[in-house]
Amino acid sequence: MELKAHIRNIPDFPKAGIQFKDITPLLGNKAALAAAVKHLAEPFRGDGVEFVVGMESRGFILGAAVAHELDAGFVPVRKPGKLPYTTERVAYELEYGEDALEIHADAFPRGAKVLVVDDLIATGGTAWATGELVKKLGGILVGYSLLIELSDLKGRQKLAGEKIVALIQYP
Amino acid sequence: MELKAHIRNIPDFPKAGIQFKDITPLLGNKAALAAAVKHLAEPFRGDGVEFVVGMESRGFILGAAVAHELDAGFVPVRKPGKLPYTTERVAYELEYGEDALEIHADAFPRGAKVLVVDDLIATGGTAWATGELVKKLGGILVGYSLLIELSDLKGRQKLAGEKIVALIQYP
Repeated sequence: MELKAHIRNIPDFPKAGIQFKDITPLLGNKAALAAAVKHLAEPFRGDGVEFVVGMESRGFILGAAVAHELDAGFVPVRKPGKLPYTTERVAYELEYGEDALEIHADAFPRGAKVLVVDDLIATGGTAWATGELVKKLGGILVGYSLLIELSDLKGRQKLAGEKIVALIQYP
Repeated sequence: MELKAHIRNIPDFPKAGIQFKDITPLLGNKAALAAAVKHLAEPFRGDGVEFVVGMESRGFILGAAVAHELDAGFVPVRKPGKLPYTTERVAYELEYGEDALEIHADAFPRGAKVLVVDDLIATGGTAWATGELVKKLGGILVGYSLLIELSDLKGRQKLAGEKIVALIQYP
């Protein structure tokens, strides 16, 4: 199964100069979706994952499917103000300015083994912030499982020392 | 498995007077998540579901897990401007004003059997609009599988004639 064949490039979305990687053809193809979920889960099957964290909004899709595959719980990480209960927050840098992500303070118990799943890693800001949220709650960060890596942007360097799986690479 | 025990009520979120149903305790409990996904999928197992549609953002979570469970593809329905490729759009009424939802025009072939999954039905506006999007693309709407139904709001009436499953009821 060549997963890359199911990713569609959209030039200039959401703004000029950006080559957007559209994962919807992969999600919509049941064989490609099943293969992606399997390959995202497989490298962490022996790691005792108890919770999968996915980031708003596309990370919810693959994160929930991987949680189901690994028989783990699913925990959403969201933009500020979206989660209804008590939250922890971590800010991270963007190309211009900064943003933040939140997690429910009671999302999992201290010492829980947590895997972070997302559709894409670019500069690694959201992945890093999500890892920090996991640690802030006392979770054990098992690693990152990512569908697409934009390798020239070196997001992997922001997650140094962590176990990282990325199924598809683009420059 | 009493699923309702895993739903948390948050008074006055996102604004005064609203009793928000927080599904994150259910999502984070692996047994409750697995039971919810199983019960959302089960009534449609004989219906030949080829695609599961989930609505931004919480519908992505249960929708993707149900798609994985039913060995179907997953199709996201999003707010205007979020999907990168050619879209179809349906507007629907809110308490004050209106909103719209979009789907990729090539999300599935005409005649495909499509199940709509969401976390909650209130007045039924988003569920109705999503069903209309499915029909606009020539899909066969197999039905709606919903985690929570706020039955006093009579959203079910907006979906008259369709097969509807809702696992948890509140007045």
